[in-house]
Amino acid sequence: MDGKKMAGEKAAELVEDGMIVGLGTGSTVYYTIKKLGERVQSGLHITGVPTSRATEKLARECGIPIADLNDTAQMDVTIDGADEVDPSLNGIKGGGGALLFEKLVAKASKRNIWVVDSRKMVQQLGAFPLPVEVVPFGYKHLMKTFEREGLNPVLRMKEGRPYVTDGGHYIVDIKLKSPDIGAFGAWLDGYTGVVEHGLFLGICDLVVIGDGSKVYTKNRAEAKNIIL
Amino acid sequence: MDGKKMAGEKAAELVEDGMIVGLGTGSTVYYTIKKLGERVQSGLHITGVPTSRATEKLARECGIPIADLNDTAQMDVTIDGADEVDPSLNGIKGGGGALLFEKLVAKASKRNIWVVDSRKMVQQLGAFPLPVEVVPFGYKHLMKTFEREGLNPVLRMKEGRPYVTDGGHYIVDIKLKSPDIGAFGAWLDGYTGVVEHGLFLGICDLVVIGDGSKVYTKNRAEAKNIIL
Repeated sequence: MDGKKMAGEKAAELVEDGMIVGLGTGSTVYYTIKKLGERVQSGLHITGVPTSRATEKLARECGIPIADLNDTAQMDVTIDGADEVDPSLNGIKGGGGALLFEKLVAKASKRNIWVVDSRKMVQQLGAFPLPVEVVPFGYKHLMKTFEREGLNPVLRMKEGRPYVTDGGHYIVDIKLKSPDIGAFGAWLDGYTGVVEHGLFLGICDLVVIGDGSKVYTKNRAEAKNIIL
Repeated sequence: MDGKKMAGEKAAELVEDGMIVGLGTGSTVYYTIKKLGERVQSGLHITGVPTSRATEKLARECGIPIADLNDTAQMDVTIDGADEVDPSLNGIKGGGGALLFEKLVAKASKRNIWVVDSRKMVQQLGAFPLPVEVVPFGYKHLMKTFEREGLNPVLRMKEGRPYVTDGGHYIVDIKLKSPDIGAFGAWLDGYTGVVEHGLFLGICDLVVIGDGSKVYTKNRAEAKNIIL
């Protein structure tokens, strides 16, 4: 079975009745949402808080009651995908373009679970480009700065035009060069025109990993594998 | 004469033929733009880069040729207002709601001149509320955090609805409590959901101050008053 499907569906089993659940965006958490929809049809009561318009649409189609982040207290758990995850469960997210809303929901959650296929687990982040969400006004000046810093910035396009996020911003994919990802993230945070970036550090509590033949978890606190 | 008018018009004299000029937003730089318009009618050649839709409209009405920040190289000078300026020429901006675009233009400028009436000059920043531009998605969680930190957040409203910036964000006005404004700005920068804040530190090179009877300047490097 597909590692994404295995991980996504397994994580749906970790949701309990009565929970407020942050719903991530992407091709792996897709399976979580589909499975949660089935559980809702069977009597599970949850409220989903979507991280994108695409996820909101999917959750509605699956019959999951949803609420806006602004109308919700702290979430019990958020389940989301990731593009790369290192052994400390730091990750890069944003390949799907929803990183800003994903990070806002994640930070408003008691617990964060990521679902990935095993190829996303890496020793060091950075093979995947780091998505940076930027203000369209004057973004070309930011691109020049990133070029001067050797970060190989690429404006993400869609159908011949800049890709626009749900928040109305652009995405610039850059090379993660610095070995000190915390300092690099802070440098990006401080840069005028940067709305948010795809470094999710110290956020994930548990990652559910599917590799085609088995599904296992890695817990941040214990950093060990538990085969489910 | 009104201090704002004195300062605003005096700064317009500092613009030279051929310059690319960042045009700030607000009731003092209004006079700069009007005066620049007169100079353009008299033969001055400049290109203006507006920091808001309101300023773009005003500049067009005054006959100033304008360009978008994305289509412009580094600006020679930007002239803008400020809500408070301390003796080191650090300031709070954003009372007019244009702080994000103002900061982007300011940072892309070789030189920044602020125009204020003398009441804006303070010994310490913080009597004026600090505007923080935030992502609408989930902003209520951010407000709760600011409340917990004792920052007295107030969502800026307009005609009974949240005020929306030209960038599509909300503004939350908070109390500037920390004596270490650099650290406080960095804390805000790192907060997910904060797009930008109104602390403009180390940006202003020269402030032109009008007090009703005279106009004088203060230079950041020399930090002394020169009566014009």
